[in-house]
Amino acid sequence: MAATLIGRLLSQGETVISLDNFSRGSLGNVEPWLTHPNFTLRRAELSDLADYRLTIEEVAKPEAVTEIWHLAANSDIPAGVRDPDVDLRDTFMTTFNTLKIMDEYGIKRILFASSSAIYGNLQDTLLTEETGPLLPISNYGAMKLASEAALTAAAERFLEQALIFRFPNVVGTPATHGVIFDFIGRLRQTPEYLQVLGDGAQQKAYLHVTDLVDAMLLIREKCRTKVGVYNIGPTDEGITVRRIAEEVASVVAPDAELRFESGNKGWIGDVPRFRYSTAKLQQLGWRPKLNSVGAIKRAVSEIAHQLSAVR
Amino acid sequence: MAATLIGRLLSQGETVISLDNFSRGSLGNVEPWLTHPNFTLRRAELSDLADYRLTIEEVAKPEAVTEIWHLAANSDIPAGVRDPDVDLRDTFMTTFNTLKIMDEYGIKRILFASSSAIYGNLQDTLLTEETGPLLPISNYGAMKLASEAALTAAAERFLEQALIFRFPNVVGTPATHGVIFDFIGRLRQTPEYLQVLGDGAQQKAYLHVTDLVDAMLLIREKCRTKVGVYNIGPTDEGITVRRIAEEVASVVAPDAELRFESGNKGWIGDVPRFRYSTAKLQQLGWRPKLNSVGAIKRAVSEIAHQLSAVR
Repeated sequence: MAATLIGRLLSQGETVISLDNFSRGSLGNVEPWLTHPNFTLRRAELSDLADYRLTIEEVAKPEAVTEIWHLAANSDIPAGVRDPDVDLRDTFMTTFNTLKIMDEYGIKRILFASSSAIYGNLQDTLLTEETGPLLPISNYGAMKLASEAALTAAAERFLEQALIFRFPNVVGTPATHGVIFDFIGRLRQTPEYLQVLGDGAQQKAYLHVTDLVDAMLLIREKCRTKVGVYNIGPTDEGITVRRIAEEVASVVAPDAELRFESGNKGWIGDVPRFRYSTAKLQQLGWRPKLNSVGAIKRAVSEIAHQLSAVR
Repeated sequence: MAATLIGRLLSQGETVISLDNFSRGSLGNVEPWLTHPNFTLRRAELSDLADYRLTIEEVAKPEAVTEIWHLAANSDIPAGVRDPDVDLRDTFMTTFNTLKIMDEYGIKRILFASSSAIYGNLQDTLLTEETGPLLPISNYGAMKLASEAALTAAAERFLEQALIFRFPNVVGTPATHGVIFDFIGRLRQTPEYLQVLGDGAQQKAYLHVTDLVDAMLLIREKCRTKVGVYNIGPTDEGITVRRIAEEVASVVAPDAELRFESGNKGWIGDVPRFRYSTAKLQQLGWRPKLNSVGAIKRAVSEIAHQLSAVR
């Protein structure tokens, strides 16, 4: 997602400094931009305040930075379920340190990639930005909610604006993880079958990364409140894991047998199904170009090419 | 509050091990219980996992501990606004480490002192346990919300029960901080006048500590859900700061002039007024014995005696 956003910002004439620990992403993701005069890329460990500070001072006049897009987080939710330190460090402390840096250098606007995981499992409740109680069921969701809370407290104290984007599941390239990435990987190992966690009935809304970036830029342009919280997602009710598995198989290994389990959860911390309201975002005039099925189809094709897995 | 709870638990025949860093409380608070055969008190820094683990292994068979009442937190909200590390360490990391210890030793129930501060400033919204959005305006509130989120994620993974008590403002003895404590302290320094932050119109609900402990024990007895979130508070709409100042002055320095400021906030991070629903708690059969005014009057008298400040 960061690579897509960077491309869009640069194409709009903005200057971008990207700090990344490259734990998941690779240099290849931003390769097209490495020679761009308005782009700087540095390795930094944002969970380490001293390293964060040193790096930002090396690459910029920090006081001249107008905003921080805080996208850094653990992206391996099961890893965070096994070891809470992962999300403490990569999902929360990166936020905590970002706010410290912003306070220190007088950077006044933050744009934050939060997550629908903060809602936990509210079954069939239509999730709006006002929905409670917020009882996340993964450490990832917990540390995203903790981050939101730290942002709103900072907004009260010194920020001019805190924009909180509650992401749905996002698909697109360059992919480093996620359901399509995993399925392709498994099918390359065993093209005869695809083992799916859960019964395949889990339904989730997916947004293509290009629609996600459109939405964030629109919110940045239009939102005038000090704290702005927006669900971002497609306007449909999603696509099942079974359908995703079928799409991936059809592109990568059409003869593969799809194998499912009983039970409606993929893994601890996974939310089997949810209904996500994006009415607030739509009031800004936004509509996704692709629905969940369209986003998955496009992403399957893109990721298969990325991984050179097309048959 | 801890001292009152400890007394109640011991009087019911339960065994209590208390870990405290004594940053605010003093030995005097639990002095009546120090010789009780079922009571153990140890100094421990719960934000330091190694110290936490060492201490709990010294004083107990940790595997035999049936539940943890997690009450440790920073209690100086303005200090946490000035320095976010305070609430990170004392309000959040104490929670994070408690959950680690519980996972490690198989302790299955946690009872957690959360706070109405997690709601932020929602103006005249009636705050129920389902209210959102949760946008706390202090680091204290943010780290209490972060703690709740860590608890619910842990409940999904290994806890049998997580009870979350959202405290109102609590008054009673032994007091170590709070509005009454502060007012008495100021009047002892300058008996001629009492300077109040804000215009005195801020209205808050106060609960006497004895009612709070009653409520928590009732929830522990009655709640059967895995995650139980309860607002605890009086059933009235509260008392103004002006009225509290008058009560304190009448007991401590009846001739003092009360001085107010303009503006409706005491300090950054303070929520000027809120409406708190305790309907869910009342459905368990609970009623407070004292309303906000009654709680303040009793606490003013108790704290004045505690501080030997009665005229």
